[in-house]
Amino acid sequence: MSASAPVAATVDGPPTHAAPRRAATPYLRLDIATAVASFRRLAAALPGTDIHYAVKANPEPALLAALHAAGSKFDVASPAEVDATLSVGASASDLVHSNPITRRSDLVLEAAQGVRMFVVDSLEETAKVASAAPGAAVLCRLVTSGEGSDWPLSCKFGCSSDQAVEVLRYAARVGLDAAGVSFHVGSQQRDPGAWAAPIAASARVFDLLGAEGRRPRLLDLGGGFPAHLDADCLAPETYGRAIEELLDQHFGPRRPMTMVEPGRSIAAEAGVLSTEVLAVVYRNGARWVFLDVGVFTGLIETIGEAIRYPIETDRDGGPTGPCVIAGPTCDSADVLYQRTKVELPLELAEGDVIRLSGTGAYTSCYSSVGFNGFPPLPTHVVP
Amino acid sequence: MSASAPVAATVDGPPTHAAPRRAATPYLRLDIATAVASFRRLAAALPGTDIHYAVKANPEPALLAALHAAGSKFDVASPAEVDATLSVGASASDLVHSNPITRRSDLVLEAAQGVRMFVVDSLEETAKVASAAPGAAVLCRLVTSGEGSDWPLSCKFGCSSDQAVEVLRYAARVGLDAAGVSFHVGSQQRDPGAWAAPIAASARVFDLLGAEGRRPRLLDLGGGFPAHLDADCLAPETYGRAIEELLDQHFGPRRPMTMVEPGRSIAAEAGVLSTEVLAVVYRNGARWVFLDVGVFTGLIETIGEAIRYPIETDRDGGPTGPCVIAGPTCDSADVLYQRTKVELPLELAEGDVIRLSGTGAYTSCYSSVGFNGFPPLPTHVVP
Repeated sequence: MSASAPVAATVDGPPTHAAPRRAATPYLRLDIATAVASFRRLAAALPGTDIHYAVKANPEPALLAALHAAGSKFDVASPAEVDATLSVGASASDLVHSNPITRRSDLVLEAAQGVRMFVVDSLEETAKVASAAPGAAVLCRLVTSGEGSDWPLSCKFGCSSDQAVEVLRYAARVGLDAAGVSFHVGSQQRDPGAWAAPIAASARVFDLLGAEGRRPRLLDLGGGFPAHLDADCLAPETYGRAIEELLDQHFGPRRPMTMVEPGRSIAAEAGVLSTEVLAVVYRNGARWVFLDVGVFTGLIETIGEAIRYPIETDRDGGPTGPCVIAGPTCDSADVLYQRTKVELPLELAEGDVIRLSGTGAYTSCYSSVGFNGFPPLPTHVVP
Repeated sequence: MSASAPVAATVDGPPTHAAPRRAATPYLRLDIATAVASFRRLAAALPGTDIHYAVKANPEPALLAALHAAGSKFDVASPAEVDATLSVGASASDLVHSNPITRRSDLVLEAAQGVRMFVVDSLEETAKVASAAPGAAVLCRLVTSGEGSDWPLSCKFGCSSDQAVEVLRYAARVGLDAAGVSFHVGSQQRDPGAWAAPIAASARVFDLLGAEGRRPRLLDLGGGFPAHLDADCLAPETYGRAIEELLDQHFGPRRPMTMVEPGRSIAAEAGVLSTEVLAVVYRNGARWVFLDVGVFTGLIETIGEAIRYPIETDRDGGPTGPCVIAGPTCDSADVLYQRTKVELPLELAEGDVIRLSGTGAYTSCYSSVGFNGFPPLPTHVVP
């Protein structure tokens, strides 16, 4: 769980007589109203589809509470995440456990907490759910290619549509509610067309099961909707229309209930990470900008330069030049952007604060416990 | 800092009347005596060379206390790491701050804590040290290729020998003690020959400064000595002899004082990580073994399959087959070994405990604060 603190008065508060003291960097400023607006926009773009916010993206309690109040349901991965949602007033019936591989005792705990829907992707895990949470509903996860996404999924999860038919048949046989199918197209997915193949595969599973007289009813369209990190990111409405068309095309009038599990597209744009320039060093013709935040204080998704956060500085407007951006630890792996340089003001200097936007998701929760003695990334909540 | 707990009586304690309850996995069992033995062996292999244990590798207080008692000095990267060493009785004069890029206020803090030796690699940081810690000693870090190491260093740190001459000249001019040169050949370095080029470059810096009448006196040979993770890892004595020869060859009778900054070679083999098999799933002909520990609970160094930990199971001895090993989170990046499969017993099943050795370094300190709601990797200390 992320460390939480009310936003310091010196960040947004009224000026005092003394010179305003700057909040200590690094910190994540999480604007809850922005997250709620993103939730509402995605919900409007996907009418009739249940939104289950993926708690893993950012489990900040104030965020969960606001999303619950706005009507969001939740996607959870562990008993601790179930607790986090129940403690802000969510109902266990509004949760889906979407981790297809789970410790048996955790399934038992979640069943006792009231969770009634679990994602599986194998006969083995289906048997486990049947014994740990008898009678629960299951969704079988299909494998996808992950192509087109910035943080692609491996083949860690998911099975073929034939295997899904087998899994759901087996689920019914062992007393589970074989509710339907799930898939995930990869995080920060830039191509709405990425939903085409898995929706077609899902329809095939529904058809095959329907031919046996079974009635799966729910299609979990996963997450992957992008945060608006650059001009190439399409709007949620574009994704909504594409998915709507694909559902019409592949299911027609036999369209199932639908749900999604967005994390990044709700939380990312609500976050701005403030970080200080520790040093600007020129070496071998390259300008290196060292920040007080890095791979081990939340920015793991910069590994491989997968996710590129928009950067703002107080010196924007002046002439710029390319630079390498590195984190504060003495670990040489702690380099954020090197292969593709970042254009930053030439005037940028030690002590300047720069702001990384789109950092509300998959940052504070990824932060290390304290590598190099640097504390985890704290969150300042703005209601 | 890693979570600490005394080792549970049920792990090594006497049998009780009730069936012995297994300690909850995952956990890191850290055997302090093993770490001290590794320290003594490395110290014996490098006679006359000061050993500064790199606190970042594992800052467990019991480990720091035992190493201090055994005569180790320390390599630190932040005020928190300085505190950790002082609080086990180390003297500030036995510390080297080896992070070449540091927040100015942290340098001021460390100077106030009594730290008197700092590594730099640029004029900019040298000026910062001169203002934050007037009169302190500095070592200038040379760049190395990192070739031959499992966890290579990027060009994040280090300068050329010509630049080092300039930095050390400047250091003297601004009132610092231009003590010498530092370098780092990359972590888990398999080739003792990797020390050849940087020792030659260091000698060149000493010669150039000597020709100006300056008298640098200290050579920091860095870390990189490997933990014995597989049969290809050479012994510390082999590294000691190679370094001894290289020092003779390049410095002859003008040999400087020497120091090293080992982390992994002292802490890694002291650690055994116990983890439970959550599931064994066959998909597309591959066997996937899912563990309750992964990339986000300490095993970041498996990214790119860089570090391969030896694995033991209670089923060893029976027939084996290849498998993919994955962590417990619903993040698809949480896969430990996939490209190069691991041979494990075919009988391996849910609930089995497997042990990853060589995990005493760069695991608990890399663990996330709680991604997916899973707590950080705890340490069970064995005195």
